[in-house]
Amino acid sequence: MAAPVLDFWFEFASVYSYPAAMRIGALAAAAGVDVRYRPFLLGPIFQAHGWNTSPFNLYPAKGRHMWRDIERICADLSLPFRRPDPFPLSGLLAARVALVGLGHRSAKMAWAEEFCRAVYRAEFAEGRRIDQPETIRDILAALGVDPEKTLAAAQTHEIKDKLRAQTAEAQRLEIFGAPTFITPGGEMFWGNDRLESAIAWAKRVS
Amino acid sequence: MAAPVLDFWFEFASVYSYPAAMRIGALAAAAGVDVRYRPFLLGPIFQAHGWNTSPFNLYPAKGRHMWRDIERICADLSLPFRRPDPFPLSGLLAARVALVGLGHRSAKMAWAEEFCRAVYRAEFAEGRRIDQPETIRDILAALGVDPEKTLAAAQTHEIKDKLRAQTAEAQRLEIFGAPTFITPGGEMFWGNDRLESAIAWAKRVS
Repeated sequence: MAAPVLDFWFEFASVYSYPAAMRIGALAAAAGVDVRYRPFLLGPIFQAHGWNTSPFNLYPAKGRHMWRDIERICADLSLPFRRPDPFPLSGLLAARVALVGLGHRSAKMAWAEEFCRAVYRAEFAEGRRIDQPETIRDILAALGVDPEKTLAAAQTHEIKDKLRAQTAEAQRLEIFGAPTFITPGGEMFWGNDRLESAIAWAKRVS
Repeated sequence: MAAPVLDFWFEFASVYSYPAAMRIGALAAAAGVDVRYRPFLLGPIFQAHGWNTSPFNLYPAKGRHMWRDIERICADLSLPFRRPDPFPLSGLLAARVALVGLGHRSAKMAWAEEFCRAVYRAEFAEGRRIDQPETIRDILAALGVDPEKTLAAAQTHEIKDKLRAQTAEAQRLEIFGAPTFITPGGEMFWGNDRLESAIAWAKRVS
């Protein structure tokens, strides 16, 4: 029987997507659940709420709690954490590059998931600007992936359309934040703190 | 050495305060942590955000996820759940009555915490209108507390001012949602899903 597939919807700008991205691979593998990486952009979804930036910026008290909360969560997970400055950093370029990698099916080309983790690490552990091509180039090179070819592929109409379509699908699914996990059968779980429940649900319904 | 005290800030209208209220007593007791019940009103805090109702009503996609999420959480905890209609129900009267009970220090008068659980049960398990005096009367009578005397006490200036002061303190502490847990030393944890972490922190810093 094929393993159940859990859709992992994430946005590179999203803080709580960081611990989720670092945890999901091992947790899902241990449960016999496959993960499908679905990068998307929260910007258009937030704009539909009338927000022009992160709600953590719009609601400062909520933002202050979030920064402390993520520090505690990362400390518990032994994940280094550094607050991005500025925040949020656009995840547009990283999402396009991730989609280039996710389009490759052969194992030899399967660098996309490692790329996603490396982007989160650069952004939330190393204080790097993931909105700048230089950072993305460095990450690709460290993974043994040709930076110039991949960045060129990321700027094609095909990839731009793919990211637009993925974001439109997220809206259609009524995704309102990241990370969001969707199980076979369409059960939605929002937030890093729901990752374990989402995996258990995916396993149960399969 | 005195047990550490965890402040439990809650609002009777708040959905995630329901599982938190049902869980906190046993979890804190097992950890040797005392709980101080701090009912307050979210209304004035939401108004300061420009919200005239629950964010779960203002952002329907978020609301739909929340209703499903709380169903799953309650099922996991074997807690019955029924969605209040209308939502939210004003927690004003229940909060004032809770403050009457919380003012009594003697063990004989210690009905307040049981009252809080009974209100949440009436609202989220039994589909009762906790904004109506009839419901509050029934709950008090079932606890062996004089309903008329207690409701009269709940409408005194003293209690009204107490609830106003408590809500003002919540604002001063930058509380933005419920439930919120604050440890000795001022560490803030927001959400039913942070209850275990808050108790562990309270124990650690004591």
